[in-house]
Amino acid sequence: MAAAELFDEHGYRGTNVADIARRAGLTLGALYFHYGNKRGVAEAVMNSQPQAIEPLLQSEGVQHVIDITMVWARRLQLDPLLRAGVRLAVEQRSHDMSDPTSFNNWASIMAGYLQEARDNGELRPEVDPAALARFVVGACTGVQLYSQLVSCRADLMDRTCEMWQILLPGITSEEAHARLVVDPARGCTE
Amino acid sequence: MAAAELFDEHGYRGTNVADIARRAGLTLGALYFHYGNKRGVAEAVMNSQPQAIEPLLQSEGVQHVIDITMVWARRLQLDPLLRAGVRLAVEQRSHDMSDPTSFNNWASIMAGYLQEARDNGELRPEVDPAALARFVVGACTGVQLYSQLVSCRADLMDRTCEMWQILLPGITSEEAHARLVVDPARGCTE
Repeated sequence: MAAAELFDEHGYRGTNVADIARRAGLTLGALYFHYGNKRGVAEAVMNSQPQAIEPLLQSEGVQHVIDITMVWARRLQLDPLLRAGVRLAVEQRSHDMSDPTSFNNWASIMAGYLQEARDNGELRPEVDPAALARFVVGACTGVQLYSQLVSCRADLMDRTCEMWQILLPGITSEEAHARLVVDPARGCTE
Repeated sequence: MAAAELFDEHGYRGTNVADIARRAGLTLGALYFHYGNKRGVAEAVMNSQPQAIEPLLQSEGVQHVIDITMVWARRLQLDPLLRAGVRLAVEQRSHDMSDPTSFNNWASIMAGYLQEARDNGELRPEVDPAALARFVVGACTGVQLYSQLVSCRADLMDRTCEMWQILLPGITSEEAHARLVVDPARGCTE
């Protein structure tokens, strides 16, 4: 998506609507018709993250949530659409937006898989699927930000594995913990 | 600190050096002499976080790391200097900075207390203090960002407690877990 490449490179303020239209091969009229304004394009980019990840995955329960984060981390290294979505979501205040939709969408998707995991006995009984989902979304947001500042996200797969190695012993049953796979290879979908 | 109030309200780009000097009652010359330029002021604000928190705490080991995060969360609701530091650190790319110093400083402080915790048998033997410290810094960054978008940080104390309730069973010995206090009251230092 043309807009994503511009938002990824230049941020919200550094990108203008005429450049988006030109890069996308659209007239300005067509762009305004589809998205309303620059903010509408930015919202579409921010909120497109799950569609870029979910169709690539086949696992279930806790493994599915691990895989979401591993594929998300891997594609942040490669895919301007995902990178732009995350950049726009994190820097919202610098362009006077305050929209938790992209965070809430991820939390809701993960909570569904974690509820399934709970029903299957994968989670310890005291773990609240909604609270865990909310925490994983926040944690991933901050872990990728820190990784970007330290290594331009080169170490993001390792940091994401580290997160799960820290989390799993406290949230999963022993049987599930022994079976779950935490490995950078889970991020490769080709 | 005058600059912090401006950066907190208007971000990096929305703040100019003349306004900082005026609000601080300094001449422009004095401000340039002390900080070099606007970026120098922003770095001072970003990197002042530990001095605002650490002197308020007396606990040790894992409880100290919990207390850092609880006081940090509480003061983010109250203190423009801390809020500005976090905002500048999170939105760095929007003003062409890429400086992990404030993150690395927190990680290094927490790693010290977690090493102490490990030596005292508070941590499970398989937990790496440096990795856990790095993760907690990233997780707190993202959790406060998500909380800001959802509730202007009104729920940040609850989200921070939730983080520790998820983490502690997997990282601490049973004896330590039973003794550690996770409560919004840990954030109050008055």
